Amino acid sequence: MNIAVLGTGQVGRALAGKFDELGHDVAIGTRDPEATLASTERDARGNPSFAEWHGQHEGVEVLALPDAGAFGEAIVNATSGLVSLEALRATAGDGDLAGKLIVDVANPLDFSTGFPPTLAVKDTDSLAEQLQRAFPDADVVKTLNTMNNAIMVNPGAIGGGDHTVFVSGDHAQAKQRVTELLEQIGWRDIVDLGDLSTARGTEMLVATWVRLVPALGTNAINFKIVR
Amino acid sequence: MNIAVLGTGQVGRALAGKFDELGHDVAIGTRDPEATLASTERDARGNPSFAEWHGQHEGVEVLALPDAGAFGEAIVNATSGLVSLEALRATAGDGDLAGKLIVDVANPLDFSTGFPPTLAVKDTDSLAEQLQRAFPDADVVKTLNTMNNAIMVNPGAIGGGDHTVFVSGDHAQAKQRVTELLEQIGWRDIVDLGDLSTARGTEMLVATWVRLVPALGTNAINFKIVR
Repeated sequence: MNIAVLGTGQVGRALAGKFDELGHDVAIGTRDPEATLASTERDARGNPSFAEWHGQHEGVEVLALPDAGAFGEAIVNATSGLVSLEALRATAGDGDLAGKLIVDVANPLDFSTGFPPTLAVKDTDSLAEQLQRAFPDADVVKTLNTMNNAIMVNPGAIGGGDHTVFVSGDHAQAKQRVTELLEQIGWRDIVDLGDLSTARGTEMLVATWVRLVPALGTNAINFKIVR
Repeated sequence: MNIAVLGTGQVGRALAGKFDELGHDVAIGTRDPEATLASTERDARGNPSFAEWHGQHEGVEVLALPDAGAFGEAIVNATSGLVSLEALRATAGDGDLAGKLIVDVANPLDFSTGFPPTLAVKDTDSLAEQLQRAFPDADVVKTLNTMNNAIMVNPGAIGGGDHTVFVSGDHAQAKQRVTELLEQIGWRDIVDLGDLSTARGTEMLVATWVRLVPALGTNAINFKIVR
């Protein structure tokens, strides 16, 4: 599958690298590919520069957002939740992303008042639903937003991989395609929560996750639904 | 410990019955004890009437709210979240609940527009914090609000008891007392999330729980934090 990943941060890199490793045709979409590829400094947390990362993942194309939109059968939204709508609009270009699968892994976290972040949308709406309303002819599926990027692409890193990933969406076939991608990554407990409004719950769940990290002293954590 | 449980519904009964079984001195607080004890009809879901339940739990006193407030060293808020503040005020009577431990297991779920419920408070505030602000000289601890009442008092019912209960609160000693109560019930994975504002997360987590129940076809579920 042609997969365009929007977002050059740790989440976008982790997913693009994993899908590439799995044999998909992968592009990372970014506003300015030249500037992205020219960035050679590590970030404040010591993460490799994009150039350094790309040197180890040369199979991943780096495309301007509209080109990424044209390329991808699936478009993975790994941008910051506060700019996701804008990024998707740029990705659509003159089109409407009709028939595309949008895999939304972002969270509408607002850090503008510091820690803990607040949620820019919640309870009666969700980022995923905002994206679906903006692109009614695309199929939005919410998933993977409830854990750190390292766990997203390597569930076996904790608890023998015995923990849960959620999928939410209004389109059964799209959820099935996402479920297959998740299984390829190695996910075993994939819970279909129902329609896209169930993303309200999983986006709000992140408010517990951000407090668990300091409480437990690690971000290598995930929710398991015991039943 | 003298424990007053506010709320005559399934949650209040489950907790009062369990604390009684564990050897605590337990009272259920209700607005009108006579009316509560006179109710002999099963509810719409077929649950026993209060009178029937009380016949099997005669060790549990039934007190008017102010009497329950005077009786309890610990006051367990098992009322509906939308009326919790009002119930606590009635429980305080002419006092301020100073020095009392308030164990808040309620959720601010608003079903007035049907299913799914919305949250009457969220994100930047929580029911637990509202209670703490209303009774600044009491020690509020949020816990047990992320699961069904049957699991609250019998964690071993699923997954061999290997799943998580959270505690949030501003008072270390109060959290320690609650932790001991939870251990008596049989909880093994008790995660101290931090100060009371972390209850925002666990109250919002219930928005996932309410969607998991229809998705999985059971309410015998709980979150486990895998790490």
